[in-house]
Amino acid sequence: MTYQSIGNIANVALVGGTHGNELTGVYLIRKYKQYPQIIQRSTFSVHSFLANPQAIELGRRYVDTDLNRCFKRQDLLNLNLSNYEQILAKHIALKLQQQEPVDLIIDLHSTTANMGITIILNNSHPYLLRLAAYISSINPTVKILQYQSSQDLPYLRSLTELGLAIEVGNIAHGTLNPFLFQETELVIKQILDYIEVYNKGLLNTLKIPNSLTLYRQVCTLDYPRDDKGQIRAMLHPQILFKDYEPIGINTPLFFTFDGEEIGLNDKEKFLHERGSIKYCPFFINEAEYLNKKIAMSLAIQKQITLSN
Amino acid sequence: MTYQSIGNIANVALVGGTHGNELTGVYLIRKYKQYPQIIQRSTFSVHSFLANPQAIELGRRYVDTDLNRCFKRQDLLNLNLSNYEQILAKHIALKLQQQEPVDLIIDLHSTTANMGITIILNNSHPYLLRLAAYISSINPTVKILQYQSSQDLPYLRSLTELGLAIEVGNIAHGTLNPFLFQETELVIKQILDYIEVYNKGLLNTLKIPNSLTLYRQVCTLDYPRDDKGQIRAMLHPQILFKDYEPIGINTPLFFTFDGEEIGLNDKEKFLHERGSIKYCPFFINEAEYLNKKIAMSLAIQKQITLSN
Repeated sequence: MTYQSIGNIANVALVGGTHGNELTGVYLIRKYKQYPQIIQRSTFSVHSFLANPQAIELGRRYVDTDLNRCFKRQDLLNLNLSNYEQILAKHIALKLQQQEPVDLIIDLHSTTANMGITIILNNSHPYLLRLAAYISSINPTVKILQYQSSQDLPYLRSLTELGLAIEVGNIAHGTLNPFLFQETELVIKQILDYIEVYNKGLLNTLKIPNSLTLYRQVCTLDYPRDDKGQIRAMLHPQILFKDYEPIGINTPLFFTFDGEEIGLNDKEKFLHERGSIKYCPFFINEAEYLNKKIAMSLAIQKQITLSN
Repeated sequence: MTYQSIGNIANVALVGGTHGNELTGVYLIRKYKQYPQIIQRSTFSVHSFLANPQAIELGRRYVDTDLNRCFKRQDLLNLNLSNYEQILAKHIALKLQQQEPVDLIIDLHSTTANMGITIILNNSHPYLLRLAAYISSINPTVKILQYQSSQDLPYLRSLTELGLAIEVGNIAHGTLNPFLFQETELVIKQILDYIEVYNKGLLNTLKIPNSLTLYRQVCTLDYPRDDKGQIRAMLHPQILFKDYEPIGINTPLFFTFDGEEIGLNDKEKFLHERGSIKYCPFFINEAEYLNKKIAMSLAIQKQITLSN
């Protein structure tokens, strides 16, 4: 995939409340609205907003459907898709792509999984990779994640080529964690500072490593289910809260309600063994993924060398 | 308050899913439905059921209104109250008080607050106090809690004089924690075993302490708010997850988004100093209490001597 080269970043969108019950983003955006100088920089504008006001009001992820799955180009063009979030997605796309076109999107999320601060990159654009390499070098606990690439992604962050999400956890939906709130705020500050330095042509003043550790999603795993589709196991105590820790080929992942341990199935084991790479689970026990049939995702860790 | 003396317990209701997103109770009841022998005892019947099926289906606390606030006698008799949970409450009351009258209710809940296993007693009936003294003596981390008493309580557990709830946390709503799942299961087993021993007239074979540490709720505290009613602070890092740890008169409880620490107000301090008793916060950061304007509850610790 080739990416267009980037001039200066003129406009950044900083978005919270794409999911209405993920309060870290909601309260950060409210704080920035009250104290706009915190996110103000000299070389670019930051447009902060709450994406899903009705869901925030209800304290739910969404009203009709997950807003952060409504941004495929084909869906934005489909006039038959007209529930609340489908319309809202069109409205946000119009705003960020045409009315006040932005160059880069930062979308703030939180999760019940123990993912610490994770930056999810929309693609492998060199600008994003370099930014991620810098942020993870000054915050060694920050993880960088990428989903399997696709031409037409459904996420709000995919409205621009330079799109990223900040995912923070573990936080129960509907609550704030003051420690993680402050950590998220710090990473946002560092990203905005990086863009400022880039715009000023001073990246050479920063120590940016020439390689980057990236987690790339391989697949998702559902809970074991019975004949009727009912969940028949919970996460195994050995894996709960162990996001990003590599698992062995026989690591138990689930624990059935009648006491049986379940690990990878044969197909997954086969893939696991091929190339002797290790899976690193993430999004373990995300509450809102239960109805998406995702108990966890599996990633492989990659070392990426940055081009000059 | 005088309580009627108790003969044998013939029927126990074991209830999960009174709140649809508290999955520990939901999956325990499903497990007991599949393996009923686990909760079977020789001297009494256990009726297990899921209280709010529609809320469970939606993965939400409730559909229209909080079911566990619908059980006041006056509300159960009020035919004008007819939303889903108000009708459901009447249906459950009919079942547990008339159709299959039960002597004792165990209602299973979970919370995002770090309350470990807490047994909430509906009142100070000697039967409940002795049961609680025994359970907390064999599980020293289990806490025993009581709300301020009232003649007409709104809780499902208050349908019988012998009513208790098991509250377990911290667990994000919509998730299971395998450690706390097993701890809850153990405490349920111990309660049922105790009732069995009581029914057999063999309580003298158990070591039951003659006193009990009880947390009694004094008041609730809301988040600090601005003129428009918007929350302007989160919980202070020093207090998060510290449920039941006594606070000092100047302990910071909240941390405003602009960096100010807030503790007890003057009235609360006055009460705190009177009698030199210490407040112990609980239900700190319960997600579903945000819209009930409760950031935490305060309790005082009491030592109760059991009568013979």
